[in-house]
Amino acid sequence: MTPEFALIDRYFNRPTHDPGVVLGIGDDCALIRSKLGVELAVSTDTLCSGTHFFPDADAEKLGYKALAVNLSDLAAMGATPRFVMLSLTLPSIQDAWLEAFSRGFFALAQRYNVALIGGNTTRGPLSISVTIFGELPAGQGLRRDAAKAGDDIWVSGALGAASLALLHHEAKITLPPNVFRAVEARRLLPTARVELGQALLGAANAAIDISDGLVADLGHVAERSNLQARITRDEVPMHAGLLNLRADQRDACALAGGDEYELCFTAADSARRQITMISEQLGVAVTRIGTMQKHTEGKNSVIVVDGAGQDITPSIRGFDHFQ
Amino acid sequence: MTPEFALIDRYFNRPTHDPGVVLGIGDDCALIRSKLGVELAVSTDTLCSGTHFFPDADAEKLGYKALAVNLSDLAAMGATPRFVMLSLTLPSIQDAWLEAFSRGFFALAQRYNVALIGGNTTRGPLSISVTIFGELPAGQGLRRDAAKAGDDIWVSGALGAASLALLHHEAKITLPPNVFRAVEARRLLPTARVELGQALLGAANAAIDISDGLVADLGHVAERSNLQARITRDEVPMHAGLLNLRADQRDACALAGGDEYELCFTAADSARRQITMISEQLGVAVTRIGTMQKHTEGKNSVIVVDGAGQDITPSIRGFDHFQ
Repeated sequence: MTPEFALIDRYFNRPTHDPGVVLGIGDDCALIRSKLGVELAVSTDTLCSGTHFFPDADAEKLGYKALAVNLSDLAAMGATPRFVMLSLTLPSIQDAWLEAFSRGFFALAQRYNVALIGGNTTRGPLSISVTIFGELPAGQGLRRDAAKAGDDIWVSGALGAASLALLHHEAKITLPPNVFRAVEARRLLPTARVELGQALLGAANAAIDISDGLVADLGHVAERSNLQARITRDEVPMHAGLLNLRADQRDACALAGGDEYELCFTAADSARRQITMISEQLGVAVTRIGTMQKHTEGKNSVIVVDGAGQDITPSIRGFDHFQ
Repeated sequence: MTPEFALIDRYFNRPTHDPGVVLGIGDDCALIRSKLGVELAVSTDTLCSGTHFFPDADAEKLGYKALAVNLSDLAAMGATPRFVMLSLTLPSIQDAWLEAFSRGFFALAQRYNVALIGGNTTRGPLSISVTIFGELPAGQGLRRDAAKAGDDIWVSGALGAASLALLHHEAKITLPPNVFRAVEARRLLPTARVELGQALLGAANAAIDISDGLVADLGHVAERSNLQARITRDEVPMHAGLLNLRADQRDACALAGGDEYELCFTAADSARRQITMISEQLGVAVTRIGTMQKHTEGKNSVIVVDGAGQDITPSIRGFDHFQ
């Protein structure tokens, strides 16, 4: 074993007692075994230096976030996290960086009992690719194409924090230090709504996680379900830090801001009570922001109206530069 | 859908009729279903511009190779290829590049009935991460840790072509044009020994694919099996293009050269006839190059001897710069 390989092994090769892992790190392939009647949900996401994070980003937070954004994809399907593979491209092998990165990564992996089963390390510009595996009862996944006309549209948490932090970084606004700390923490250490996604199986019809912005991501659900989403701007839950912004900046952060990792989901109105109970049990706020409908108002996949019912879609769509 | 997203969709979103793919590209996760009694073999590999290929590498060949090196990991486990995920990091979205890359990728994917079930595209320095999924009868995978003392050591094909092509690129040697074309084709379009790996299930005990060099990779098998591999240099099958090299360059290419994607495997001597038959049926040469033994000759995991039985391990280990 070369010294570099030994170093990587030291930080990432951790034993697992998961009976689903037949063979973990160290062979040509990992071998995994699924339970009966289960589907495997698989997703992959890449974080690239300069595109998804600042080149001087803290390694521990990066390790956490690289896993969190992938957990969020499982959450949006309602899947239970099981296994993960990690591909690291590094300009050089640095002990301290690997130690910190693995600390952040495993902190979250252990919380969800996710076993690291393989991966690779490559020399090159800093970039992190994670492939995650979750399990689902067959046929029950929260697909994007399964929204029904008449469904309520819900969103978890409060939106806009990550974009607000970016506005501060870009010197477009100046936040008070305590507000910046709060929204910066949301940007760097997002919470994947794993428990909420699992609890919504059987209650919600469709779900997506908000990574590109509420309107853009809800648009994917509407398009794939051949429906139109109609949401009321003033119902969208906004992070408290947005209150002092100009109205257009506030809308841009909450409706078009990415990197949120909250869930947007649709459910029949008969499920309202069940969803409210799930929200209370998990301590995760959920808010009804609109309705899925047949294409009754033009061709846009998402229609945004203000509190008075005025169509403000064009101004919201103008915020695409946020994505 | 943004124009960029539509372009990627156009080249990569191809319908599959595989009943194992419950949900393919376009949702938060792909959903796959395994057959009963089957284990899923999973592997991931990254090709990075400047590290694994020249920055001006041909996109079609790159698409082919990115899949081939991952198929090779499945081959080394004896698994049947089923699904693949593709993460592309691109400095810019270029129609011609995507068209050529996808052509190379799908040429190989279709040959092995591998369904592209998901992935992502990111802006950044050119790099390609592939995660591949294969199926195996439970408990039958060709693991690195399953070699037995007394096993024959076999290698498929002939070694050294990819390294020979690199020596020419680095202007350390000058090859006749026809020889260069032949070895360059081996370097850029390697053959994953998928059918051989599958046929070896039940015949071989352990296997690995040669990506870092014969001695290095066989060393992994020996270490994980707590054994010592003893091979005879003059038995190692060398690519014909190596015949005119200096002896040390020849040994370096054949024994320490990476990027081969031939299989090195061990099997009981009672399996010799079966292995010869497999080789003939598939038209893939296999050669016996040594024996697995208990640690009888020091601590090295691999011992290399010349035709006269002289230990030449130190000189071979000096070729590490090739890796």
